Amino acid sequence: MLKPLLALVAIALAAPVLGQTAPAPSPADAIDSDWQLIPDNEMLVITLKGGHQVYIRLAPRFAPAHVANIRKLAEARWWDGTSVYRVQDNYVAQWGDATETKPLPPMVIANPPAEYEWGGPFVGVTSFTRPDPYAARTGHSADGWPLATDGKTSWLTHCYGMVGVARDLAPSTGSGSELYTVIGHAPRHLDRNIALVGRVVEGIQWLSSLPRGTGTLGVYQEESERLPILSVRLASQLPEDERPHFQYRATDNPRFAAWIKARENRQNDFFKVPAGGVEICNAEAPVRRAR
Amino acid sequence: MLKPLLALVAIALAAPVLGQTAPAPSPADAIDSDWQLIPDNEMLVITLKGGHQVYIRLAPRFAPAHVANIRKLAEARWWDGTSVYRVQDNYVAQWGDATETKPLPPMVIANPPAEYEWGGPFVGVTSFTRPDPYAARTGHSADGWPLATDGKTSWLTHCYGMVGVARDLAPSTGSGSELYTVIGHAPRHLDRNIALVGRVVEGIQWLSSLPRGTGTLGVYQEESERLPILSVRLASQLPEDERPHFQYRATDNPRFAAWIKARENRQNDFFKVPAGGVEICNAEAPVRRAR
Repeated sequence: MLKPLLALVAIALAAPVLGQTAPAPSPADAIDSDWQLIPDNEMLVITLKGGHQVYIRLAPRFAPAHVANIRKLAEARWWDGTSVYRVQDNYVAQWGDATETKPLPPMVIANPPAEYEWGGPFVGVTSFTRPDPYAARTGHSADGWPLATDGKTSWLTHCYGMVGVARDLAPSTGSGSELYTVIGHAPRHLDRNIALVGRVVEGIQWLSSLPRGTGTLGVYQEESERLPILSVRLASQLPEDERPHFQYRATDNPRFAAWIKARENRQNDFFKVPAGGVEICNAEAPVRRAR
Repeated sequence: MLKPLLALVAIALAAPVLGQTAPAPSPADAIDSDWQLIPDNEMLVITLKGGHQVYIRLAPRFAPAHVANIRKLAEARWWDGTSVYRVQDNYVAQWGDATETKPLPPMVIANPPAEYEWGGPFVGVTSFTRPDPYAARTGHSADGWPLATDGKTSWLTHCYGMVGVARDLAPSTGSGSELYTVIGHAPRHLDRNIALVGRVVEGIQWLSSLPRGTGTLGVYQEESERLPILSVRLASQLPEDERPHFQYRATDNPRFAAWIKARENRQNDFFKVPAGGVEICNAEAPVRRAR
């Protein structure tokens, strides 16, 4: 942990001095075409009481039935007036209808198929050098989703900020009306047991810094503790000029492979012992505001 | 993610019904002698403005020189009036003297030896079945500290709640006056690059739920954002009747090995696909209030 004040000095020193040329790009730097626009109907915008917003990139390719439900819920404005009702330290923040009594909109399927893992070839393009305790291999899809495989099936991994669908005991798979995001160490034991439907790409601090619930599983005990949700919308539901635009970084190129290598072996002045490896959840593929 | 309301039902069902005998102990249950008292001079008590307290178990066996400094700082009441001045999402909360101008007490060594790793045999007694991306093997010391090894040296791992010593660029090793704790996914790339000196065993929510700093590295930009620290004391400095007492769970017994196995393959009704493994930071050895 670099001390912050000195860190500021170090960062200042690393910046190009006025009048000098900018430093040459690193092999791990993305080029413009590596940044790809995330479609408006794959971005979910949560507006919390107080005005802070949380932006979620959806994963329709991996959980099509659950994401279809989520789109219908957003289009029906179903979440408006619901709340964040559970915050469990080092685990999850969860939102939706705390009373579990609000009827689902028509066309929302209460229990879609279990979209937990997929057979067939591993779609990751950047694999890491070592296995982890949960998988034989981990890597990223070309469009930046974190994946693991045992050689037979592949699945999304429960990294920080990933968004999943709360469910009751099987055969329930959850409708998508109750969602959570990971706000602690990756609970990878949930992988393959629950549908992951997206990732918070901006604004997670408005969920991760909430007071922890003191009820069972971190549920707020008092109604007054719940954080009201003003609205949840797909970006595609918003007026054109209010839509947020984000880009993901494509991973199917040598620049991303170099970025992974750089994370495996950090080479700045602070690190004396390079790790020689990196865990999938310490290598989440970058997403940024569109430029 | 079990929906919380149904979870309450499930928990209620699992509790013994009045008039019936209690369920038989699981092989993973600790027996009384597995719980060992943590000495008073290995417990640090931080009292924050507002009265909330954070309890840290110190690791003098692993970082003796840094812990010696920390004891001197507590005995000199050096932290009283300092603050939590940095909270970076998915990373760390850091405290001490935000101005970095307060002189250290006499006898505190500015840069102790680099207590980052140790040669010799691996002291872990419970090893996991699979390597992780950062180490050939992980496990616990007999007294519950999370460890990793490459076969040549061993080191403490940067799991959630572990406490480390902020430092400047080497040869600085940090005095221990500026400390941080992990409040996000384990930044294992810091392993072997920094001194770990303890673990938050209770009260981390008072740090992890703080507003995130908007300055570089999560530093609070305004002095008014800092959370004042009223006092930091070793339990041994407190009057006898005010000392908190905690117990760690010993790991050098078959019950703890069974506990690890149970975490590798969760068997309750919620989990359909057991993970078949567990990462060291998802298996932090339990610590509890003394009974």
